[in-house]
Amino acid sequence: MEAIKELSYALDTFYFLMSGALVMWMAAGFAMLEAGLVRSKNTAEILTKNIVLFAIASIMYLLVGYQIMYGDGISSVIPGLGFLIGDDNTVEAVLAGGDDAPYYSTLADFFFQVVFVATAMSIVSGAVAERMKLWAFLLFAVVMTGFIYPVQGYWKWGGGFLDELGFLDFAGSGVVHLAGAAAALAGVLLLGARKGKYGPNGEIHAIPGANLPLATLGTFILWLGWFGFNGGSELKVSDVAEANAVAMVFVNTNMAAAGGVVAALITARILFGKADLTMALNGALAGLVAITAEPLTPAPLLATAIGAVGGVLVVFSIITLDKLKIDDPVGAISVHGVVGMWGLIAVTLSNGDATLGAQLTGLGTIFAWVFGTSLVVWFVIKLIMGIRVSEEEEYEGVDIGECGLEAYPEFVGSRGAK
Amino acid sequence: MEAIKELSYALDTFYFLMSGALVMWMAAGFAMLEAGLVRSKNTAEILTKNIVLFAIASIMYLLVGYQIMYGDGISSVIPGLGFLIGDDNTVEAVLAGGDDAPYYSTLADFFFQVVFVATAMSIVSGAVAERMKLWAFLLFAVVMTGFIYPVQGYWKWGGGFLDELGFLDFAGSGVVHLAGAAAALAGVLLLGARKGKYGPNGEIHAIPGANLPLATLGTFILWLGWFGFNGGSELKVSDVAEANAVAMVFVNTNMAAAGGVVAALITARILFGKADLTMALNGALAGLVAITAEPLTPAPLLATAIGAVGGVLVVFSIITLDKLKIDDPVGAISVHGVVGMWGLIAVTLSNGDATLGAQLTGLGTIFAWVFGTSLVVWFVIKLIMGIRVSEEEEYEGVDIGECGLEAYPEFVGSRGAK
Amino acid sequence: MEAIKELSYALDTFYFLMSGALVMWMAAGFAMLEAGLVRSKNTAEILTKNIVLFAIASIMYLLVGYQIMYGDGISSVIPGLGFLIGDDNTVEAVLAGGDDAPYYSTLADFFFQVVFVATAMSIVSGAVAERMKLWAFLLFAVVMTGFIYPVQGYWKWGGGFLDELGFLDFAGSGVVHLAGAAAALAGVLLLGARKGKYGPNGEIHAIPGANLPLATLGTFILWLGWFGFNGGSELKVSDVAEANAVAMVFVNTNMAAAGGVVAALITARILFGKADLTMALNGALAGLVAITAEPLTPAPLLATAIGAVGGVLVVFSIITLDKLKIDDPVGAISVHGVVGMWGLIAVTLSNGDATLGAQLTGLGTIFAWVFGTSLVVWFVIKLIMGIRVSEEEEYEGVDIGECGLEAYPEFVGSRGAK
Repeated sequence: MEAIKELSYALDTFYFLMSGALVMWMAAGFAMLEAGLVRSKNTAEILTKNIVLFAIASIMYLLVGYQIMYGDGISSVIPGLGFLIGDDNTVEAVLAGGDDAPYYSTLADFFFQVVFVATAMSIVSGAVAERMKLWAFLLFAVVMTGFIYPVQGYWKWGGGFLDELGFLDFAGSGVVHLAGAAAALAGVLLLGARKGKYGPNGEIHAIPGANLPLATLGTFILWLGWFGFNGGSELKVSDVAEANAVAMVFVNTNMAAAGGVVAALITARILFGKADLTMALNGALAGLVAITAEPLTPAPLLATAIGAVGGVLVVFSIITLDKLKIDDPVGAISVHGVVGMWGLIAVTLSNGDATLGAQLTGLGTIFAWVFGTSLVVWFVIKLIMGIRVSEEEEYEGVDIGECGLEAYPEFVGSRGAK
Repeated sequence: MEAIKELSYALDTFYFLMSGALVMWMAAGFAMLEAGLVRSKNTAEILTKNIVLFAIASIMYLLVGYQIMYGDGISSVIPGLGFLIGDDNTVEAVLAGGDDAPYYSTLADFFFQVVFVATAMSIVSGAVAERMKLWAFLLFAVVMTGFIYPVQGYWKWGGGFLDELGFLDFAGSGVVHLAGAAAALAGVLLLGARKGKYGPNGEIHAIPGANLPLATLGTFILWLGWFGFNGGSELKVSDVAEANAVAMVFVNTNMAAAGGVVAALITARILFGKADLTMALNGALAGLVAITAEPLTPAPLLATAIGAVGGVLVVFSIITLDKLKIDDPVGAISVHGVVGMWGLIAVTLSNGDATLGAQLTGLGTIFAWVFGTSLVVWFVIKLIMGIRVSEEEEYEGVDIGECGLEAYPEFVGSRGAK
Repeated sequence: MEAIKELSYALDTFYFLMSGALVMWMAAGFAMLEAGLVRSKNTAEILTKNIVLFAIASIMYLLVGYQIMYGDGISSVIPGLGFLIGDDNTVEAVLAGGDDAPYYSTLADFFFQVVFVATAMSIVSGAVAERMKLWAFLLFAVVMTGFIYPVQGYWKWGGGFLDELGFLDFAGSGVVHLAGAAAALAGVLLLGARKGKYGPNGEIHAIPGANLPLATLGTFILWLGWFGFNGGSELKVSDVAEANAVAMVFVNTNMAAAGGVVAALITARILFGKADLTMALNGALAGLVAITAEPLTPAPLLATAIGAVGGVLVVFSIITLDKLKIDDPVGAISVHGVVGMWGLIAVTLSNGDATLGAQLTGLGTIFAWVFGTSLVVWFVIKLIMGIRVSEEEEYEGVDIGECGLEAYPEFVGSRGAK
């Protein structure tokens, strides 16, 4: 029996590590998606943001974030020495059995959780693209990944008050996606729209992304990575019931994405008369965000429908934000924020333990906390160093100004947009 | 012992899910490969086709395809309610033991199978690129993934008459690749060649792909994904014999791809005097297709040789199809059809249970069924809505016409081809 | 108990295969990284090199390399027949138990090892980019992957004299990365710099890469693949201690990369005044190379620091090599060679079994062997067929000359560099 317990521990740990690797891969997905949806003159900078934010998230979450989130909230901001030197479960503790016995490696759990923080932060980079100062963004990333995200993460996943209240969020429509979108919205409001996006008479000018194959690649990467994101969030695979649950999560995650694609494509076709690729991509992501709060209890058909509603919502949300002159170059606030809210509410459709009250409380709490603290942090950064590049730098492109190089130095032809 | 059975079930289920995730990733591979091999003006549309067809395949296979293929053929087109609401194996059934006891999750099996359907459909999109109407293609995808593919899938993998006949096709050189190519060929024949591809005096004009790094990335993605495609098709990993078998499949899959690359490169060097990258890429894919019908029984050296023959074949096939004025922009019919046939025949080289007769019967049946039904469906679609874009739209590029946007709005310089 | 042994064997084999698949994926990472960092006119050729070298590595390692490395060194260059026909462990041998009993599939081990060879060879292709003849490179790849690499691999991982000496190299900072860089350096010295790189008065001209999103994608792919590279090198996952060890390796691998990114970014900011994306990318890779010799024993904070030192080192190394007029278009010699040496030395910081003497002996031996033999092989190839393309071909780009096609036939606008 001891050998079985050890083997079971090994399988669950391996499952965590593979899931975490898939979620880490989402960092590449966000980088490609965002790099494809901005103009070529702002591409190198957004790539820089994406790889550096992942590094910052890893370091800040190691230093303080993980302890805040899975220790005892903000009071455990100073991590135990054992964690920093890499202690893990002893064989004795595992074999002791009982409900409290660890059944997978703590370090594997850290690895799985750290890539979630980076995901939340990746959402921000897209929304503030093409006009935010690089170092202001990175400074915000330090605070977001070290404090803002972990505190609300503790409230739900660390066993805090939202969890006790009965708020349900399986893999993070709220804790990750809505949180990222709320931080992004605060930044966008302080930052203002890109020059030329909105005309003086209310015109909205489309600013097409420079490289749609990259954006499509990014979407496929995210779709793949989401199997780790949702699939790993079951936290256990090593018996029949758990294995079935993980399989159900995989199927529902895939079906919701499929529903989102088809619904967004058809919505765009009806509204614009064309099969808009960027809307299909956003539809896939919307379907994925929508199912993330509850990918286990819906039947596959219902999961498809939940994703499809997300796909419709995202198109209308993108249009509406544009009308409100909230300039989000990649649609991140719509995909992760608006649809994240839908995902939280949709839990009530299939999970008998969910109540609309608890879901709305969680939704409101996460949004208020992240939006409020982010607004303060962005504002302080604005006071200290400014958050927006100069008009001239925005015109020339932030790549030259911030990174000193160009993403595609040979390619921009006579049609190249300044 | 019960704990061991549960753990074994969990490992096999997890193995299915990881394999399925790798196969899902092949959808990105096809998208990048095809987007790299068409002209820039037709890139956004083929990206749209690729992501939408994956969504359609997922939905159609859930609604009817899986039941046709693994139920009782076309008579079980109406799926059981249990499946749609996501029933899975009970612990009792697993522990009951015996040869009929389930040893992995049914939902994991669905996930693994659904990504195969999408693969078959992805093959079609490349062959009809640059001149087919988007919505006609998507309509065909509905029928192909919901009916045409599952029916022949049932004949072999669902236990139908081809299976009883002794036809062997381990992971689908026939059921997936030849099937996809046959549907593509039917479409291409009805559609005709791209304008300017073949001159009035028999000249063949090369139309180079716009983005070879993308095409190379797509090939690497497919190579990686194929470890899931073939490796998962062993269907079990949880004992010594099965683990060894899966390892053998991984090694042979890799060796066949390697053989295909080298053989195609050398063949192209001899014929054209140059190390043609696109032929090396097609050689890799040809090696992979060739080994797919039997990646378990050949020794690694034989697997390399089977792949190498595929690599030679694909070069000659591409040349021959061009002479026949069968215009396949990405070489899909050669890679998946011609080499798929070779793969089916090559089973007889190492598997003592294979007979040439059974292999040819399977090959002929799959080709005849898929080609025939596809021809009818394409023809009906042509009658209803047409399948080819207007000459003007073809000249301007289908991206603007079908999707209302451009894949690379800033990049096409003075050398940009219209 | 027998069932547990079989299941454990299956889990370890599956872990090897998944790790190997991740390492195989690194081939795509190198291809994208290198394709992004060269000029567009030399892109198709470097893609060709990358996919063909992977094929050559697979074939040569099957034919002779694996036997040299894990048989009995060069004396076992002729592989046993059993291996080539794909023999694997019998159930009896596994169940026999004892310390010598195999606990995972030999074929899975071959698969895991073969992708390491390809990694070493991929390092070379970047350093000699933009001016080396394709077929000369491929000929070198045959010798490197079949003989040079396996011989030094045997000295350490095959149980040869470096292993007996107490030289420690967990996953290959030396055996893989330093080896690849040493072969690259030998080639670069014989080859000379690219035309126009160094002016007559000591000027150093930057030659920017054509596609930084590709280079970033390549870096993310390598980061992901490294979890297989280091994580799989623990060689076992199936009990509590081993599962914890693999988890620790994942965490430290990620932290070192994060440390490398931040350190390189800040170093570049201080030196150049800009947040240089290419330095951030090289910083990530440097962090990964640095931790590869010992990703198990450092605490996560120390791993971050080891990676950070790598990130600083790589920036100064790139600058220094340029001053020495050693022209390495992608920085491979700095990333894998200089930082690989640092990684070997850093083992002494956390592993009590390491001695500086043994580490330096291993470092010196690997460098001397690979550099020396490579110099001879490059020289012989130079005599036979030449290794450098003509001045005219270098000016026009090696894509047309070697591959007969262009990577981006439509994109290069008026700013396109010749």
